[in-house]
Parts: sequence; structure tokens; C-alpha cells
Amino acid sequence: MTSDIKDIRITIWNEYRHEQHNPRVAAIYPEGIHTTLAAALHKSGGRNIRTATLDEPQHGLIPDVLDTTDVLIWWGHTAHQEVSDEVVARVHSRVLEGMGLIVLHSGHFSKIFRKLMGTSCNLKWRESNDRERLWVVAPGHPITEGLGEYIEIEHEEMYGEYFDVPPPETLIFISWFSGGEVFRSGCCYTRGRGKIFYFRPGHETLPTYHHLEMQRVIANAVQWAAPTAGAPSTFGNMPALERSSER
Amino acid sequence: MTSDIKDIRITIWNEYRHEQHNPRVAAIYPEGIHTTLAAALHKSGGRNIRTATLDEPQHGLIPDVLDTTDVLIWWGHTAHQEVSDEVVARVHSRVLEGMGLIVLHSGHFSKIFRKLMGTSCNLKWRESNDRERLWVVAPGHPITEGLGEYIEIEHEEMYGEYFDVPPPETLIFISWFSGGEVFRSGCCYTRGRGKIFYFRPGHETLPTYHHLEMQRVIANAVQWAAPTAGAPSTFGNMPALERSSER
Amino acid sequence: MTSDIKDIRITIWNEYRHEQHNPRVAAIYPEGIHTTLAAALHKSGGRNIRTATLDEPQHGLIPDVLDTTDVLIWWGHTAHQEVSDEVVARVHSRVLEGMGLIVLHSGHFSKIFRKLMGTSCNLKWRESNDRERLWVVAPGHPITEGLGEYIEIEHEEMYGEYFDVPPPETLIFISWFSGGEVFRSGCCYTRGRGKIFYFRPGHETLPTYHHLEMQRVIANAVQWAAPTAGAPSTFGNMPALERSSER
Amino acid sequence: MTSDIKDIRITIWNEYRHEQHNPRVAAIYPEGIHTTLAAALHKSGGRNIRTATLDEPQHGLIPDVLDTTDVLIWWGHTAHQEVSDEVVARVHSRVLEGMGLIVLHSGHFSKIFRKLMGTSCNLKWRESNDRERLWVVAPGHPITEGLGEYIEIEHEEMYGEYFDVPPPETLIFISWFSGGEVFRSGCCYTRGRGKIFYFRPGHETLPTYHHLEMQRVIANAVQWAAPTAGAPSTFGNMPALERSSER
Repeated sequence: MTSDIKDIRITIWNEYRHEQHNPRVAAIYPEGIHTTLAAALHKSGGRNIRTATLDEPQHGLIPDVLDTTDVLIWWGHTAHQEVSDEVVARVHSRVLEGMGLIVLHSGHFSKIFRKLMGTSCNLKWRESNDRERLWVVAPGHPITEGLGEYIEIEHEEMYGEYFDVPPPETLIFISWFSGGEVFRSGCCYTRGRGKIFYFRPGHETLPTYHHLEMQRVIANAVQWAAPTAGAPSTFGNMPALERSSER
Repeated sequence: MTSDIKDIRITIWNEYRHEQHNPRVAAIYPEGIHTTLAAALHKSGGRNIRTATLDEPQHGLIPDVLDTTDVLIWWGHTAHQEVSDEVVARVHSRVLEGMGLIVLHSGHFSKIFRKLMGTSCNLKWRESNDRERLWVVAPGHPITEGLGEYIEIEHEEMYGEYFDVPPPETLIFISWFSGGEVFRSGCCYTRGRGKIFYFRPGHETLPTYHHLEMQRVIANAVQWAAPTAGAPSTFGNMPALERSSER
Repeated sequence: MTSDIKDIRITIWNEYRHEQHNPRVAAIYPEGIHTTLAAALHKSGGRNIRTATLDEPQHGLIPDVLDTTDVLIWWGHTAHQEVSDEVVARVHSRVLEGMGLIVLHSGHFSKIFRKLMGTSCNLKWRESNDRERLWVVAPGHPITEGLGEYIEIEHEEMYGEYFDVPPPETLIFISWFSGGEVFRSGCCYTRGRGKIFYFRPGHETLPTYHHLEMQRVIANAVQWAAPTAGAPSTFGNMPALERSSER
Repeated sequence: MTSDIKDIRITIWNEYRHEQHNPRVAAIYPEGIHTTLAAALHKSGGRNIRTATLDEPQHGLIPDVLDTTDVLIWWGHTAHQEVSDEVVARVHSRVLEGMGLIVLHSGHFSKIFRKLMGTSCNLKWRESNDRERLWVVAPGHPITEGLGEYIEIEHEEMYGEYFDVPPPETLIFISWFSGGEVFRSGCCYTRGRGKIFYFRPGHETLPTYHHLEMQRVIANAVQWAAPTAGAPSTFGNMPALERSSER
């Protein structure tokens, strides 16, 4: 049953535009957010890590890549509309089959997250270097392993409620912002056989993904979201299991 | 806060094809399932009831109709693909704004239900006149008002698990079928400000919607799903509420 | 199905000790918190409102009072241990039968709330006049009717996470505190046929229950928690419903 | 993060009365249900398995045993009232600290389960050798690993709805009974830092726990319920985290 991170096939998808066009972002993530996350997951024991980006053919998410991915991590912001519907449909189908999905920060507005949630996924925001403090509200949950009672981030973009998503099946973190807002920052869902984790922090102009506790949460979430060989599911027209079912 | 059914603006949408082309169905619902449901809701006290069908312009769901609908009831089966994406988007947007939605039986595969759920909504089925017994598993819930411990339907189409929907926020009914299957037959969800109730029974070749307890559940669900004047929601870029939010 | 507040039989239970022994509290609630709440509910349309206090015989909660109560409101703080186990068992039994229960502020540590939750109900606290802002995270919910996007309280005692309760079935409010904490401040549960709402604010040395929006939330919660005539429940040894159940 | 079953410290608690006084039960479980379960868990890879029974001093659950238990399995039926409140309080406290708890069959009426649930835990029952079919309704969940779409048990005692427990946080199995009933047979809860799994089958006069799929579910549940080293929790009076928290 157990998933060791070294056996989990991880694919990190990144839009990878800000880093190429905005020197301020490039200074923080010179080889892209995906590369920083890949290095962090490697340090956490990951041994099967790939990356993919928007401007690769099929955004790097050809069927063979997705079919051999256990957990997909998604960061996007400025070009959600450029992600092809065909690739979104493929990712969606893989999640229902059991592939884990970790959606980061501005990925709340990605096509794939909105398709899985069925809502607008809208929220309040402010680029103003608020202090953020993520409080753990599910302290026995594996995603919180190794953390303290809260994670503090010196400066982050603010996201505020109401966050228009379905009520999380498990709520892991609630963020406090110095500007006066709160946010449900760690939200677990299941869709079909797949597990989904939305994790709020990660504005591109700030060094959030270099933060060791952020890296720890993402590594924990990879292990939580990895597929388990649960029971099979079949659909369609079925004969009765009991003989005298009609009276 | 309370919603009296006489004040709720109800629209019943029906595909209305089987009734026109299949004499067996026409014998049961000569003026269409929508007309039978409208009469039942009128008997339950509804005074603001309209119907709409697939073959009307814009399927009868022009903006003005949806904008003045509190609760929309949906029955479809054979022509889900003929429902225009534009109308689906309009219904979806109204649900997020607070319009209630009651999805009946084969409506599980409608575009609007799948869009709101984010999953395949697939299931097992068998047209074989099973006996169905819907057990109440949330006995204090308003949707169960006036019922006994279970509802028995002499003959119904079987729907069996696994039903590929997100875990219901509240599960109201579980069906037992004589052929050996079970099904989560009454499922409550919220999406945005809207309430959604999926209710399983209602195969077109059987007189299910003439059943008084079915009618009672649907009338109860209309009252449960009616919008309440809850708190407003705003989205987008927001100034800080606290003065010294940056340090 | 609908519950008009004028028909709901409300009993407000208050420990009523601080008001009699602490002049600072008496200045704010000269006739007790229960009397202030009763007046507020009367202004909201309540016409069937009683109060009961700890020092009355059986704490004012004799069987006849509980049997004719639809919704019980509970405020206690300093004398939880003085509430008799017999009265707690009676309240517990009535909740399972369908009586609504609204637990306020320091009532989180009451015997009845801990018995219904099954957990320690522990939390962090600080008497330091923090500013509190309760954000609505379920904007279509009837408990939020008539509110804005948040409620602001100039000064309140802080309660902070982790709050050791079962995950709420519906989370309505999340509090932001100026001292840096967050709290799940409006939590809905069902136990048996009864509905339970925990609502955080209300420290005795501050005029919180004179706040109109607090009063509005409590009146809304009374209507939400009022029992509905749902399906009956029977328990124990039962004959089979199907003839040939053994093979 | 991952828990290998060989490292999990398992304690199996059994009332162990039927087996000693009823020859029919003794024929099926000659050394007690606990010994059968211990052997099954050993076959599944468990290497740290102890048993404890009612008639041992302190029911075999002295502080040192509980303090070194990761997952406790509980089977009781005829003597729930003989379990001392002190031992129940100790188990309760350990669950809130993170110890997993698996409650089997008639354990639904045990003191510890009722204390954790906060409800009556009542249900319908019939000793009549119904056929039971447990359908998986959460097919990606680790507790279902290695199972088919359902588990069939030739003969079992019937348990029927309404089952008076809080709505499960995750519902894993729904049982179909040949007599016409359904039951929520696999229910997951969290209380404090602990995970709880209620699993329905296991009447003492039938060989249910010799069934390989039953054994598989219990072994899976042990791994799911094992504590994870999540975030710490502290409670009580706390200084502010922000400097200027009062205005």
C-alpha cells in the first residue's frame, strides 16, 4: 500500500514564461520554477522526476508521459488559455484514472483545475508583500508531516476569501494575511480515483519555492496523492447478480 | 430566510423526446414528464411553475427565463449532446450565482451535471424491472420530510455503483436493488452559491413520477435548493483592510 | 418544511455567573447574556423564547422544558463542571431526536458540546482585545443571510487553531485575528436528527452580543437548526423485507 | 511518511467471551477472534502484533500497552458495560493523540466508539444468514487495495440503516443484504490526530474473519490508520504573534 517517494513517477509542469521574460523572476528562478521544484523533490528522495513546459510540443504532456506519471504538479499563471483543450482532456482523464494532481498558486485558474472543480475558482488577490502565516488545521494529516503549527512566509501575494471552489473534502491549511484576509490554502479533493491537492503559496516574484517548509509540503503531498492500487471500477450494462431479481 | 414553495420560481426542463416517439412512454406521460412533474408540484403548493423542452428555441432556456428561475429541474436521456454549450454555460453560471438545480435519473450524464461535478458521472445500469428500495440515511434532513424509513418502487431501472461523482456533501438516500446492487440515490452538493440535488429514480418506461413519494421528495428538494439571500461575494484585486500590512 | 422564526420554540441557556459577580460584565449585560440574546431574538421575530440558567433547579432544563424546545442556545464558561451529568444526558438525547443546538464561544468546553463532538474541543486563547474579522466561506448558506462578506468586531478575545473538533460538515466562518491567528468560527454538524452550530465570538467582558450582525447570525442559526419533520428512524431486531433472503 | 505494516505496532482487543462459552463460536474461532485476526495480520506482513482481552487486568490495556500501540483493533459484543470507564478514557485520549482505531462489527455499541462518535450508534439487525455484498464506493482509497468491485459474504448477520453515527468523512463500503436492507459498512473518521475505521462484518457464529478479503480490508485499514508524524498541536493561553495586535 505504502508509496515511497523514490518510486513515484513525478512530472512537474510549468508555464515557464515569467522566468524567460521578467528579469525579476529570472533572478529568483533562473532555470524556471519547475527546475527549482525538481531539485527540491530530488533532495526529498524523489528519483523519478520529469519536467514539462507550455512551449514544448503538446506542452510536454504527450500521452506516453501522462500514462507514466503518478503525480502531476501544475504551475501556470499568464497563459492558461494557451493550454490546449486536448491536453486538458487527457490530464482530466488521467486524474479520474488515479493520477495525483498538485495545483500550485495561480494554477487555481488553470483549465484543468476549473474543469475538475466545476466552479469559477475565483478569489481576491493583492500583490503587496503581505506577511502570510499558514495554520495547520488537520494536524494528523500526512501532508503536515514534519511541519510546526504554522508556516510563516515573510512576503507573499495575498489571496482572499471567498474562494469559489467546492468545499474541500479535507482542509489542511488556513492562511492569515497581514492585510486582514484569510484563505483556505491547502485543500484536498478526490475526483474518480485521483487525489487532488491545491496549495496556495508561490507568487513568481518571490522566493517562496526556495522555502524549505514549502518544499516539505509539496514532497508530502506527492506521497499523499500517489495512486493506490484500489478496487477496479466497471461501468455500463450489467446482468443481475441475484437470480430472482424480478417479481 | 424560509422559502415557501408558493413563492419559488420553478422551471422544469425535459428533453421530451421519448414521450413523442415511444408509445410505451407516451402511455405513461402523455404530455411529457415535465407536465406530470409540473402538476405534482402544483398539488404540493407550487404557484410559479414553468416548463421548457429541448426542441424549443434555445431549449426554452433564454436568459430571461433562467434569470427568473429559483430552482431548475432537469430530465434528459437520449439527446444530451444536442443541448448547446451556450445554454449549458448559462445554466452553469446561474447555479454558481445561487439557482438551485435538481438533476433526475439519466440526467446524470447531462452536460450540465458533468460540468458541475468535474467527473465522468458514469455508473452501472440494467433495464430489467428490479425492485428498488431507497433507504433514508439522513433522517433529519428536510428532503426526507413526510417520508417513511424507505421508499419502495415496484419496478425500476437499476443503477449500480461505482457512481463516478465527487463524494456527496450530504448523502440522503441509498438504493437497494433486487438484482444485488446498491446506489447513492440522493446526493447533495453546493457549487458557488447554488445547491444541487441528484435524485436517481425515473426511468421513462415506468410510472415512477406518478408515485406520491417521488413527488414529495422532488417538492422537498425544490424548497431545500431554493436560493437564500446569503452574504455577497466579490472577486479580484483588493486593497488591504489593515493599515500596516507590509513590514 | 419551512420554519418561521415566530413558530420556533427557543430556549436560551446561560451560566449567568460572571454577570452577577463581575461588575465589568454586569455593566455590559445587566440582566445577563441570556436576556440580551432573548431581546435580540424577539426583535428578529421570535415569539416563543424562554431562558434558563445554571442556578435554577435542574439548571432550568427540566424534561418538560427540553421536550418543548426546538432550538437550545448555550453559553457557559466558568462552571461547566457544575452542570449535572443527568441534564447533559437529557440535552444529548434531545439533540439526537432533532432539537437544534447553538453553542456560543466558551461553550466549546461545555460537557454537552464535548459529548457531542467526541474530542477535547481544546484551542488557543488570549484575552487581549484583538480585532476579529469573520470571513464568510459559505456565501449561499442560510446562516449568512443579510451579512456582508465579513463581520468585523473591534475587540474580542482571541481563539486560535488547532481547534480540536471533528472536521465541520459545513464551515461557515473563518476568523482573522490581529494578533496573527485564524479560527474556524462557524461550524455546522449533524448528530442523529439534530443540527448543531458552533459560533465563536462572545467574550463576557465585551459587548459582542449587542452587535447587530452577531444577533443576525444567531437568529439565522436558530432557523437553520430548527427540527424538520424528516423520516422516522427505528432500531433493533427486524424481520426481512424480502421473502427469500436466505439461500 | 509511508507506513510499512511490519513497522506498525498493532494491538488486537477482543471481548473473548462467546468463544469460551458458546461451542458454536469456539468451533469457528477456537483460540478467539483475536488470535485469528493476529494470524491473518502476520500473514499480511505484520511483525509487531499483540492481543488483549476483557478478562485480563485492566482488560490488557495498561498505559504502557496503549502508549506503544499505533493501531488498536476492537471487537466486543456482549459485555460492553464491563469495560471500565478508566480504560475507555485512556483509549480515547490515545486516539486523540494519533493512535489509529479499527472498530469491528458489534463494536459499534462499545463505549469507546460511542464516546468518539457522540451519537447512539444504534441500527437495525437480524440474525438470519442473509447474503451480504459490500460494494466499494471509494475505489481509489487505500483501504480498497487488492479488492474487486465488491466483497460477497455467503452468510452474515444483517445490520440495516438508519445507522446513527455522524456522516462518515469518507464512505468506503455500502452493504447490500438479501433481506432488503443497506448499510454504510466502511466508515472513516478523524478525531483529534487519530484515524478511525468502522468495518461492519464479523458476526461471531459465522467464519467471516477467515475470509481472505475481510483480512485484506483489515490489513489495509491498519496501514491507513497508522499515525503519521504530522504537525504538533499546542493549546491554552498564547501571546500574540504580531506586535501591534491591539488598536
